[in-house]
Amino acid sequence: MRAEVKVFLKDGVLDSQGKAVHHALDSLGFDMVSDVRIGKNIIIELDESSVSSAEDELEKMCQALLANTVIEDYTVEITK
Amino acid sequence: MRAEVKVFLKDGVLDSQGKAVHHALDSLGFDMVSDVRIGKNIIIELDESSVSSAEDELEKMCQALLANTVIEDYTVEITK
Repeated sequence: MRAEVKVFLKDGVLDSQGKAVHHALDSLGFDMVSDVRIGKNIIIELDESSVSSAEDELEKMCQALLANTVIEDYTVEITK
Repeated sequence: MRAEVKVFLKDGVLDSQGKAVHHALDSLGFDMVSDVRIGKNIIIELDESSVSSAEDELEKMCQALLANTVIEDYTVEITK
């Protein structure tokens, strides 16, 4: 089973990497860009047959390690 | 218009960040995890009304700045 975990900074938290990329795109002439936000995309392969127990485990992984829940939000999606 | 650009290391390129997270998950007792790969997820807000010209611009941004095409693959998706 494969899961996709997306981790993004919460709204209101300064995304300095996104700001830097936005500025660089602007310098390169891509002036139609109005905002850039950058997050992590974590693809996890699991040896687990039940979707619901995989979701439980992934939730625990996010809380324990993958996301800093003070400043980051995350979404978990089982992709296959 | 909003676009989501996903940038991942190509297959065969060592993903040291993914390996480190896999090891950490293993240490925390998540032994059902068989592989972890980590990429970037770049959300771009565009002032552009045509989907096809937005796709063209995003392709140029990926080639010019967002991805290192020697070691990275990318996908572009218009999400709204």
